[in-house]
Amino acid sequence: MFNYVSSMSSSALHVYNSLTRKKELFEPIHAPHIGMYVCGPTVYGDAHLGHAKSYVSFDVIRRYLSYLDYKVRYVQNITDVGHLVGDGDEGEDKISKKALIERVDPMEIAETYTYTYFRDMDALSVLRPDISPRATGHIPEQITMIQDLIDKGYAYAIDGNVYFDIQSAPNYGQLSGRNVENASSGTRIKSASDKRNPADFALWKKADDKHLMKWPSPWGVGYPGWHIECSAMSIKYLGAHFDIHGGGIENQFPHHECEIAQAECSTGKSFAKYWLHNNMVTLDGQKMGKSLGNAISLEQFFNGSHPLLQRSWDPQVIRFFLLQSHYRSTTDFSEKALEAAEAGFQSLLSTIESILIYKPQNRHDHKNDVNNNKVLPNFKATFESAMNDDFNTAQAIASLFDNTKKIKKKITAGQSPSDLLALQNWLKIALTEVLGLETNLSNKSGSNFNNKLSEDLLHLLIDIRTKARMDREFELSDIIRDRLKDLDIELKDSKEGTRYTLPK
Amino acid sequence: MFNYVSSMSSSALHVYNSLTRKKELFEPIHAPHIGMYVCGPTVYGDAHLGHAKSYVSFDVIRRYLSYLDYKVRYVQNITDVGHLVGDGDEGEDKISKKALIERVDPMEIAETYTYTYFRDMDALSVLRPDISPRATGHIPEQITMIQDLIDKGYAYAIDGNVYFDIQSAPNYGQLSGRNVENASSGTRIKSASDKRNPADFALWKKADDKHLMKWPSPWGVGYPGWHIECSAMSIKYLGAHFDIHGGGIENQFPHHECEIAQAECSTGKSFAKYWLHNNMVTLDGQKMGKSLGNAISLEQFFNGSHPLLQRSWDPQVIRFFLLQSHYRSTTDFSEKALEAAEAGFQSLLSTIESILIYKPQNRHDHKNDVNNNKVLPNFKATFESAMNDDFNTAQAIASLFDNTKKIKKKITAGQSPSDLLALQNWLKIALTEVLGLETNLSNKSGSNFNNKLSEDLLHLLIDIRTKARMDREFELSDIIRDRLKDLDIELKDSKEGTRYTLPK
Repeated sequence: MFNYVSSMSSSALHVYNSLTRKKELFEPIHAPHIGMYVCGPTVYGDAHLGHAKSYVSFDVIRRYLSYLDYKVRYVQNITDVGHLVGDGDEGEDKISKKALIERVDPMEIAETYTYTYFRDMDALSVLRPDISPRATGHIPEQITMIQDLIDKGYAYAIDGNVYFDIQSAPNYGQLSGRNVENASSGTRIKSASDKRNPADFALWKKADDKHLMKWPSPWGVGYPGWHIECSAMSIKYLGAHFDIHGGGIENQFPHHECEIAQAECSTGKSFAKYWLHNNMVTLDGQKMGKSLGNAISLEQFFNGSHPLLQRSWDPQVIRFFLLQSHYRSTTDFSEKALEAAEAGFQSLLSTIESILIYKPQNRHDHKNDVNNNKVLPNFKATFESAMNDDFNTAQAIASLFDNTKKIKKKITAGQSPSDLLALQNWLKIALTEVLGLETNLSNKSGSNFNNKLSEDLLHLLIDIRTKARMDREFELSDIIRDRLKDLDIELKDSKEGTRYTLPK
Repeated sequence: MFNYVSSMSSSALHVYNSLTRKKELFEPIHAPHIGMYVCGPTVYGDAHLGHAKSYVSFDVIRRYLSYLDYKVRYVQNITDVGHLVGDGDEGEDKISKKALIERVDPMEIAETYTYTYFRDMDALSVLRPDISPRATGHIPEQITMIQDLIDKGYAYAIDGNVYFDIQSAPNYGQLSGRNVENASSGTRIKSASDKRNPADFALWKKADDKHLMKWPSPWGVGYPGWHIECSAMSIKYLGAHFDIHGGGIENQFPHHECEIAQAECSTGKSFAKYWLHNNMVTLDGQKMGKSLGNAISLEQFFNGSHPLLQRSWDPQVIRFFLLQSHYRSTTDFSEKALEAAEAGFQSLLSTIESILIYKPQNRHDHKNDVNNNKVLPNFKATFESAMNDDFNTAQAIASLFDNTKKIKKKITAGQSPSDLLALQNWLKIALTEVLGLETNLSNKSGSNFNNKLSEDLLHLLIDIRTKARMDREFELSDIIRDRLKDLDIELKDSKEGTRYTLPK
């Protein structure tokens, strides 16, 4: 039995669909299976806070769908070719440009920044995609789709380039609301002269001799346009019609509009059912982004090395900070806001800790406490109803604050709910599995506690105890031995000194 | 100026070349650049000790070449299609088979085990490849090479399959020593009936409807044979003729023999100049390998969960254990041998620690100590001469043991070498940068020290100090404050209790 059909919460999941511009009841195509595709990074630079906003948002969406017992296949691509500087059809390939600057193979650039991307996402507790297909790894699939579009009359090849003919696409503009006339308003005045319509976009581009990344094709040696990879790879791994397509709001046009045009004209079927777009991170009201030059990388947040930062920040605090605003709202960054998030997170964790630490009593201790078994259902209902409202993590976190405070008060008053154990278990699931937050801040890499320090501190304690024993202060030496035993550290005294065994 | 031309060591680098079956002076094709290709994992299961032996070996080789100031481009592939059960031309694709069992897309299998592979290699301090190309990501390159081989008369297409005609290859057998007649002795008696010669091997295989991974090609829908990916990808990223090709000895035939045949017949040039093969890991004298069913995964070593293991093992101990035998020797695994390696490693680290902790005196303290400035050159010479002898890590580690013991004795006798600072720096480089070992065992994930423990131990120390202050035992409270200050932890007492600031 699935939660999503037998939901104990007061509401069913609704999501804001950019395609219809309204909140809709979420009804998967083939429940319990959900196909979810999210536009991944272009791997030519370090991931920054804007990336974190997008991937933490979709991570929580995926986690919440799993919490509802859906079986999610989460596909998120790696763009390692075709994304041009300026996001249009003219200009250099972002990765080739970086490769030329650093005098290495473009694949070394892609390798480096794919690695750092996942390293940073791991630190933020973003779950790995089930499949993370690379654009360069799907050239045949892209060529097949382009040929299909030509055969069906939606695209035309001219002098080694292939363009999508937007006037031929019946549904062009359905996502962005732009029609064929004003679609071209975003393009440069000096557009490539071989296009029939300035708003037509490239499916395949001819490569000259100097071009670093290129493949043979029916239209000559070249490389794919930026948009075709996502249509080809999402369909390959999720089918022609799938549940959720996600990405940053800046990709709604032209990228996602073009994806829909390509996919639907090729397959003749409706493409993604629900389109979800996260909003951006701003710094002083301006979008933060690598190409804008005002981005603080995640690594810089974690180690505090950016000049705009006063200190380093635990990845968990960054995650909590981002989840405190709704994914469709902008997140305005300042270090003050991060400080507030940290204080709030610590306070929440401390309240949760004081609930989790409490050992549930036998049921008969509370036989008069008839109303208490409503605590968990009520708590779940407020949390789920927030998440069911288009994944409102801000509300969900607020419900955690409110409810845990109330429960803590009850426990302090000696009135622990009779379903405390179930409540503790659910609380851990809501915090760690749905929101992806850790119960212990200091376990994360951002902390200044480390393993070497443990060893040094233990040696100091043993020294103090040795001195105490020499001074015949056995009370102190026993306290140290017993308190260490509580931490699963056993001391053994011998002629050679004190040895210890560590917790397993 | 490069070390490799102005070497202070007594010897120049020699490597055992499987192609010529002898040790040869190492002379790169385009110094200081070195192209190095190593056969990577087939990602359908957890990495085991056999993988660790191979990738730790080539990691040290790469690191030593960098130490000699070469600029190494290290390419190591991910095999995610084409490697059939049984390593031949018949049988199921290893990844498709696993995907069918687990009822997921083959790319989910590849994604999962690519992730765990790199996670385990990271734990072993194996550096990431500069490029880790995937076989499925290079279908066009493989098709181009196959077509080229057909065009040049070295391959033939028949009914959707393409085979390499080994009788047409002038150099077939140069690596393995097998000739065309006995090359077929390793193949099954019931070989595919459409081959001209039973020893001919598949470049492209026809896929039936049930086959999960397939692509269009000039010969119909199918998938590449196992060998072609390495020829196509090594040439793409390193050029037709490059310096080093490495891999496990079990891949010498047929895999590497076939790689050479494909590459040289296609390009008309000599393929890799030096072929390096690591030997295998045995368990009771038998090869350890996933397909043999006797493999302990690296994760199981790290967490001690395999029934054959008594306990968990620090990844650094595994690395040290492997480096204690030469890469061309077999490593016979037993937990006793690991215990011995651990004891040896701890003893080496403790000796090194006692050298590194020593603060170099002013030079004039040692003006009479005329011979001492030979300590570093001598130490370097023995270490480098071991490594120059075909990367003899066993010898190199022995030289670390011997020389650090000698130096430690001198320091204890108050005769520290006048070049102590340089010696300390070099020692750190030899240990951490060349051998890839950490100076502190307890910093690794295998350790039972952790961050939460640091916090608990610090709180215990503060409690003891608070009690001491209440008991007016100021000597003890000052000792604790001062010793913590040595660890960069500052205590601040206030009415609310004791607060602390942690090391940065």
